[in-house]
Amino acid sequence: MTGLPAMERILGIDPGSRITGYGVIEVDRGQLRFITCGTIVTDRKHPFAHRLNEIFDGVNEVIQLHQPAVAAVEDVFLATNPRSALKLGHARGAAVVAAMQNGLAVHDYSPRRVKQAVAGYGQAEKNQVQHMVRVLLGLSASPSVDAADALAVAICHANQFRVTK
Amino acid sequence: MTGLPAMERILGIDPGSRITGYGVIEVDRGQLRFITCGTIVTDRKHPFAHRLNEIFDGVNEVIQLHQPAVAAVEDVFLATNPRSALKLGHARGAAVVAAMQNGLAVHDYSPRRVKQAVAGYGQAEKNQVQHMVRVLLGLSASPSVDAADALAVAICHANQFRVTK
Repeated sequence: MTGLPAMERILGIDPGSRITGYGVIEVDRGQLRFITCGTIVTDRKHPFAHRLNEIFDGVNEVIQLHQPAVAAVEDVFLATNPRSALKLGHARGAAVVAAMQNGLAVHDYSPRRVKQAVAGYGQAEKNQVQHMVRVLLGLSASPSVDAADALAVAICHANQFRVTK
Repeated sequence: MTGLPAMERILGIDPGSRITGYGVIEVDRGQLRFITCGTIVTDRKHPFAHRLNEIFDGVNEVIQLHQPAVAAVEDVFLATNPRSALKLGHARGAAVVAAMQNGLAVHDYSPRRVKQAVAGYGQAEKNQVQHMVRVLLGLSASPSVDAADALAVAICHANQFRVTK
């Protein structure tokens, strides 16, 4: 465990073919600071290749604007349907490649681990995650579900290094 | 059906997380001409995000070198295992985004349709596809299975426009 630099920006990503959540936080000597969050929404009417490109462009833009050093990406829900898994894989691949192309280190976290990190319980509900993200980052309002999930992945990554083992 | 321009280069891609085949052909007034083919092989020992990036970089390099105008991408085999489907989806997403980022139009073709196009039979075996690709492009030797599949997708795309319906 080498620890984080004194100050580092972490990009959290919750990928999806329809909605990809993103959130950037800064870890400054162990303190978490909110930088930005939002969603990349793709149009179902566009060809799938275009939607993947929109995800790549969206993640790329967030990185260019906010200059995070690392990306923490939520593992997608393992659908029982191979067709859904295939689609989700495409979306996640587009997001991961956008981070890699910008030279970010990419870390994966399971949904269970993310929930555990922010809510202390691996089976926590979406609204618990939203609430805890708001509390942990001192936000005046709750981010959307997808943006909150992305911020939660970023917090999960930060906690790997903040917590003394 | 608007037809292809008098001369156009087509990039065929057969994506996979381990081996991605690629092939470039030129259609010159209805005649097919072989330009290049090969494989992008990722190292199983590398983290998955790195392997996706290698696929993106590999496809990007082929496009930069050979300047195709369109990409024809084989739909991946729909694995019955959601975990395999997810992995293949990531790889295909990385390849598609590399094409889109270079401004190529991206077209999808099912394996059945590709086999039908080159071998006249949707259930054709791998070695039949290899053989027919060799014949159709007048090659002196058979390309590898993955490169042949990629060339077959490119030929399949070309045939959409060459054949009078």
